[in-house]
Amino acid sequence: MVECCANAILLLCLLSFSVVTLASSPCLVTGLPLVRNISEIPQDNYGRAGLSHMTVAGSLLHGMKEVEVWLQTFSPGTHTPIHRHSCEEVFIILRGSGTLYLASDSHGKYPGKPQEHFIFPNSTFHIPVNDAHQLWNTNEYEDLQVFVIISRPPVKVFVYEDWSMPHNAAKVRFPYYWDELCYKEPQKDEL
Amino acid sequence: MVECCANAILLLCLLSFSVVTLASSPCLVTGLPLVRNISEIPQDNYGRAGLSHMTVAGSLLHGMKEVEVWLQTFSPGTHTPIHRHSCEEVFIILRGSGTLYLASDSHGKYPGKPQEHFIFPNSTFHIPVNDAHQLWNTNEYEDLQVFVIISRPPVKVFVYEDWSMPHNAAKVRFPYYWDELCYKEPQKDEL
Repeated sequence: MVECCANAILLLCLLSFSVVTLASSPCLVTGLPLVRNISEIPQDNYGRAGLSHMTVAGSLLHGMKEVEVWLQTFSPGTHTPIHRHSCEEVFIILRGSGTLYLASDSHGKYPGKPQEHFIFPNSTFHIPVNDAHQLWNTNEYEDLQVFVIISRPPVKVFVYEDWSMPHNAAKVRFPYYWDELCYKEPQKDEL
Repeated sequence: MVECCANAILLLCLLSFSVVTLASSPCLVTGLPLVRNISEIPQDNYGRAGLSHMTVAGSLLHGMKEVEVWLQTFSPGTHTPIHRHSCEEVFIILRGSGTLYLASDSHGKYPGKPQEHFIFPNSTFHIPVNDAHQLWNTNEYEDLQVFVIISRPPVKVFVYEDWSMPHNAAKVRFPYYWDELCYKEPQKDEL
């Protein structure tokens, strides 16, 4: 009887610890509800001032294998790096305006020569595979908010410092920090 | 000189005919601008009363090979068929509310037993591959509007008449009518 009570108390302690650990976690991979409130999804800026990134449906967080969906917000004057990738990408502009720079002659290590395209609320466009591109919020008064859809996640990108420079040697996986943090934490909790 | 003028007039006639033909076409595949206004995208209901479907980025219309994005609106009381498919699918609820019926035990010809999930504005969910599902607008006062993202377009679906019935024999490609109409027309114009 005493052993039974001790076991029950131990179990309760473990359960309490587990609940506290999960509740204090910045995100949950295991136990995520099927229907999720987008406004409650954790966000990060990945070290880029003025960026807010949310993974709405992701490979690391939600087990997606073929598509990934992000909600990104760029404050006035901010932008993505110049980059290219071998997956398909679709943008939907929810609010704000700006400029898309897109080079259709990217090849090898160089980004090619970009064309400017005005982007506006309720507009959409897709980036041809491996074309170098960059998105700027050129509206000085309003955030630029977009849904981003990519294929074959997680995306790996070549980043260029400048339109005249070759890309950096290594591909960079994005999003890396926040999703990986969230992905690893539940594994520790489950040990 | 006369021949030159005649050629010029013929060219002008051909150009005028071409412009008129393109302008009166319900959609344009060739010559689509890179950045498109979503509110100007053609819509269709595919014979389903209360449905409005727009292909925001599609395989037939825009040459997408790995992802496709739709904007769909369901009037109060309307719904999708019960169906399943082998591609990934993500929903984003823009406005309205309703019910998702999702069976995680679909197998063979039968859809399995569905669970009900409440869906609400600014919520998101994804449909596990090959799980039978159905979306209902159960809000009697408001439209249900959603972005739908699928992988490996064009999607081919098995449709069930009822949750207790086996699926129909043939897979159905969706969206079929409007996109195929739009896809074929420019080929004729280009002849």
